Amino acid sequence: MSKKEQTAISPTRFENYPEWYQQVVKASEMAEISPVRGCMIIKPWGYGLWESLQRQIDDMFKATGVKNAYFPLFIPISFLEKEAEHVEGFAKECAVVTHHKLEKGEDGRLVPAGKLSEPLIVRPTSETIIGDAFSRWIKSHRDLPMLINQWANVVRWEMRTRVFLRTSEFLWQEGHTVHASKQEAIDRTCMMLNVYKRVAEELLAIPVITGDKSEAEKFPGAETTMCIEAMMQDKKALQAGTSHFLGQNFAKASGIRFQSAEEKEELAWTTSWGVSTRLIGGLIMTHGDDNGVILPPRVATAHVVLLPILKKPEENEAVMTYTEELARQLRNILYHGTPLRVEVDARNIGGTRNWEWIKKGIPVRVEIGPKDIASNAVFMSRRDLDRKQSRSVTKETFLSDIIGILDDIQKNLFERALAFRESNTHDFDDMSSFDAFFTPVNKEQPEIHGGFARAHWCGGSDCETTIKNRLNVTIRCIPFDGKEEAGSCIECSKPSKKRVVFAKAY
Amino acid sequence: MSKKEQTAISPTRFENYPEWYQQVVKASEMAEISPVRGCMIIKPWGYGLWESLQRQIDDMFKATGVKNAYFPLFIPISFLEKEAEHVEGFAKECAVVTHHKLEKGEDGRLVPAGKLSEPLIVRPTSETIIGDAFSRWIKSHRDLPMLINQWANVVRWEMRTRVFLRTSEFLWQEGHTVHASKQEAIDRTCMMLNVYKRVAEELLAIPVITGDKSEAEKFPGAETTMCIEAMMQDKKALQAGTSHFLGQNFAKASGIRFQSAEEKEELAWTTSWGVSTRLIGGLIMTHGDDNGVILPPRVATAHVVLLPILKKPEENEAVMTYTEELARQLRNILYHGTPLRVEVDARNIGGTRNWEWIKKGIPVRVEIGPKDIASNAVFMSRRDLDRKQSRSVTKETFLSDIIGILDDIQKNLFERALAFRESNTHDFDDMSSFDAFFTPVNKEQPEIHGGFARAHWCGGSDCETTIKNRLNVTIRCIPFDGKEEAGSCIECSKPSKKRVVFAKAY
Repeated sequence: MSKKEQTAISPTRFENYPEWYQQVVKASEMAEISPVRGCMIIKPWGYGLWESLQRQIDDMFKATGVKNAYFPLFIPISFLEKEAEHVEGFAKECAVVTHHKLEKGEDGRLVPAGKLSEPLIVRPTSETIIGDAFSRWIKSHRDLPMLINQWANVVRWEMRTRVFLRTSEFLWQEGHTVHASKQEAIDRTCMMLNVYKRVAEELLAIPVITGDKSEAEKFPGAETTMCIEAMMQDKKALQAGTSHFLGQNFAKASGIRFQSAEEKEELAWTTSWGVSTRLIGGLIMTHGDDNGVILPPRVATAHVVLLPILKKPEENEAVMTYTEELARQLRNILYHGTPLRVEVDARNIGGTRNWEWIKKGIPVRVEIGPKDIASNAVFMSRRDLDRKQSRSVTKETFLSDIIGILDDIQKNLFERALAFRESNTHDFDDMSSFDAFFTPVNKEQPEIHGGFARAHWCGGSDCETTIKNRLNVTIRCIPFDGKEEAGSCIECSKPSKKRVVFAKAY
Repeated sequence: MSKKEQTAISPTRFENYPEWYQQVVKASEMAEISPVRGCMIIKPWGYGLWESLQRQIDDMFKATGVKNAYFPLFIPISFLEKEAEHVEGFAKECAVVTHHKLEKGEDGRLVPAGKLSEPLIVRPTSETIIGDAFSRWIKSHRDLPMLINQWANVVRWEMRTRVFLRTSEFLWQEGHTVHASKQEAIDRTCMMLNVYKRVAEELLAIPVITGDKSEAEKFPGAETTMCIEAMMQDKKALQAGTSHFLGQNFAKASGIRFQSAEEKEELAWTTSWGVSTRLIGGLIMTHGDDNGVILPPRVATAHVVLLPILKKPEENEAVMTYTEELARQLRNILYHGTPLRVEVDARNIGGTRNWEWIKKGIPVRVEIGPKDIASNAVFMSRRDLDRKQSRSVTKETFLSDIIGILDDIQKNLFERALAFRESNTHDFDDMSSFDAFFTPVNKEQPEIHGGFARAHWCGGSDCETTIKNRLNVTIRCIPFDGKEEAGSCIECSKPSKKRVVFAKAY
C-alpha cells in the first residue's frame, strides 16, 4: 500500500470537488467572498490575470472594428419592461435603487430617504439602455454597422453564489452591435463567438465546444444564443461565453430604425455578446490540481518568480545582485508582444515561500542560491510538471529557453484538458446507459461523474425538461461541428438528425 | 468694423461659457447626458481618450509599487457609519438599494420586491469597504506597506450635473494604502499628488497648482487633503485630483492593526487618492476654443486623421492607395512608446468632414488629393494653430516630422494654458480690490471674470465662510510653493504668514 502523497490543498479534487475549489481560490489569493452578500473581492493576484486577459480580448475586439464606450450603471424600470422576455428573465434577481439619500431615523440609525419617482435597477446587462442610445445615434444606413463594447460591472442577485463562477456582482464586457441586414448580424454573432473560442483556447488553454443553445437555455430576448462550453475536472460543463443574435426584438423595443440606401425606413438587426470574470473560475477548474491553481502563461499575472536563497549574510548581497540582474534580463524579453512579468520574492521564510507560489500557480519558479551562482546556473521548476522534474540549468540556457518553456506549458495545459474532455465525452443511444452515465457511482464522491453525453434529441422542449427533471442534465449546446446522421431521440425515440451535447452544468 | 469670424461652436466662449461647454462636448461626440438622471454616456471618442489616459496613469501607479484589485459596488450602511465625518459627507447624496427583485404590482407594472434586511448604498468612494478587507489582510508589519488601487464606477447623487464635471455616476481610480508609520503615509500622499501633477501637466497639458485644502474643503474623514488645482478659460478653478492623508481615522473605524517589529499591536496609517473622468472636462475647458475641443497628443483618442479627397472616380483608387500606405507608415511610428493612432475618413461629404474633425479636436489633419500625390506631398493642418497656417509638405518630411509636430502641439497647449493662468493670477492685499476682482464687470458675460487671487488668510474658518458667502469664492489651496511672508488676512486683518489661493470653483 503506497503512502498517500502530501498535497497543498485539502481536500483533494477527488475527496470533495466543490470544497477543493473554494480552498484553491483561497490559497491562490486570487479572490474572496466579501461581507457584502454574494459580492467578491478580486485580490491583486486575481485582478492581474483579469487585466492581462482583458487587454488581449480588447485588442481582439478592436481588430474587428469594435470601439469601447460606457453607459449608465442604472436602468429605469420602464426601459427593462420594453422587451417582454427580457424583463421576465431579469426582474427576478436585480438590485433595485429606490432612494437617493440616507437620514437619521428615530433610533439614530441611518434609513433610506429621498424616494425616487421611478425606481432604478442596477444593470444586469445593458441591451435596453444601450438600445435607447442607438435609437438616437443611428439615422441612416451610413451609420451602420455600429460596433460598440463596454467593460463594466453588472449585478444579478443570485441566490447561491460561488467566487468567480456565480456572484451577485461580476466584471464583464458586453458587446452590442447594430446592422442593416439579418445576415450581417448573424455573421457578427458568429465572428464574436469565434473570438471567444480563441480567447478560451489560445489564451486560457481551455478547449471549448461551440454551438447553439436550445430554446430553453437561450438569452431572454434573443432569437438564438451561441455559446462556448468547456468541461471542468468534475466533468461538469461551464458556459464560458455567449454571443446572441437578437433579431429585431430589441430594435423594436428601443426603436432602432434607419433610412436604407433606398431611402426607406427600416428596423435594424442587433447582436450582443459577453464574457466575464467567470472565465477565471473556468481556468481554475480546468487546470488546477491538488496543489492549487496552474496559470496558463498567456494570461498569467506573472510568468516567473525568482526565489533567492538568503541564508548566510556574507553571501546574500551576491545572491541578490545575481537575482536582480536576472530579473532585469527577463523583463527585457518579449512574450507574445509584452515584456515578461517577473516577481522577485526575497523573503526568508523557508519552504513556505515555494509552496505559496505553487498554490498561486505561477508557471515557472527559479531558485537561486550561492551554489547556483558558482556554476552560473539556476534551479528551475515548471508548475505543470511534477516537482521531481525540477532541474538545474545554466543561466544562459534558461534565458534563451524561457519563451519556449512558457509556450510548452501553455500547449501542455491545453492538451491535457483536451484529452480529459475527450476521454469523458461519449455517444449514447439508449436511455438506460445515458441515465447510468449521469448517476453517481461512488457515494463518497457524488460530485465527479458523468461528462459530455452526445445523444440524439427530437428538438422538443418536453424531452429536454423531462431529462432535466430526472437527472439535472441539460442540453449544453447543439454543436456546430455535429455531422448529420439519422438517429432517434434519447428520450422519446422520435427521429432526429443530429446529436446534441448533454451535461450537468455550472 | 471687422466682420465677426465664423466659428464652429455657437455660442462662443465669451458669449456664454457654460453653454459653449455643453455645445463643445456635443459637437466633439465625446459624451452625452443619458435618460438616467445625472448619468452620462461616454461615447467612443471620449472613452478612447479615457482609455489612453487610464493606461498611462496605471503604468505610473505600478512604477511606484501599486497593484490593482477590485472591491464590491455595494456598501452596507453599517460600514459607512463607522467613520463619523465620512458618513456626514456622503449620506446626503447616495443611491440606496433596498430590494433585490421586481414583481408585478396591482396595476400590472413592476414594483420593487424582496426587501433587504440592511439597505446597501452604491459606493460613493470605498474607504470603508476596502478598510474592512485591509483589517483582515494585514497582520504584521511585514504585510506593509499595502498599496492597492481600483478602477471603478462610483455614484454620488448630485443635484446639479454637468457632463464630465459633475455627474451622478462617474469613472475613476481610487488608491488606498496602509503604512506602519505616519511619515511613510504622508510621504505616499505627497508621492501620489506628484503623480497627479505629472498626469495633468505632462499628459493633459494642464498646468496645476499643488497644495493643501483648508479644513472646510477637505475630504470627509481625512486629516489633510492635498490637491491639484487648474484654471479653466472662464478663470474658475477646477479641482483635478486629490490625495488624502487619512491619519488613523479609517484604521480606527475599520480596525486596521498590525504587529510591529517589536511585537506590539499598533494602529496603521492610511491614505487614499483619486482622479476621475472629470479630468476630461478639465481638458476641454482648458484647451477648447470656439471651434471645439483640442486634444493634447499625449492622450488623444487618435493623433492623425487622413482625409482622402475623392472627387473623380478615375483618381479615387490612386488616392486611397496613397492614403492607406501613409496610414500604414504612420502606424509603424512609436509616439511615447505606443504606435500612432491614425484614423482614415474616406467619406465624400464635402467640408463637413473637415469641420467634424476640427470639432473633435484631433491634433493633426492631413488632406490628400490627386495634386498632393503628384508632388508626393500632403496638406497638413495643426489643430492648435490658425487654419491659415495649414501647409503642404512632402510626405517624407511629414513622416519624419510627425513626432516633433505632436510634441510641439503638446508643448504649445501647455504653455498657452500656463500663460493664461499666470496672466489671471494676482496678489491682493486689500479687501476692496479683492472683492472687485471677483465681481462681474460685463453684465452680458457674467461667467468670465476673476481668476486666482493670492491673498493672506489668518487660517480661521470664519473668514473663509464670510468670503464664501459674500463672493462665492473659496480657498482652492494653501500652495506648497508659497513663500513665507508677513501679511495680514484679507478679511479680518489678523497676521498671516502665507498667501493662499482664492477662486470661484467648479
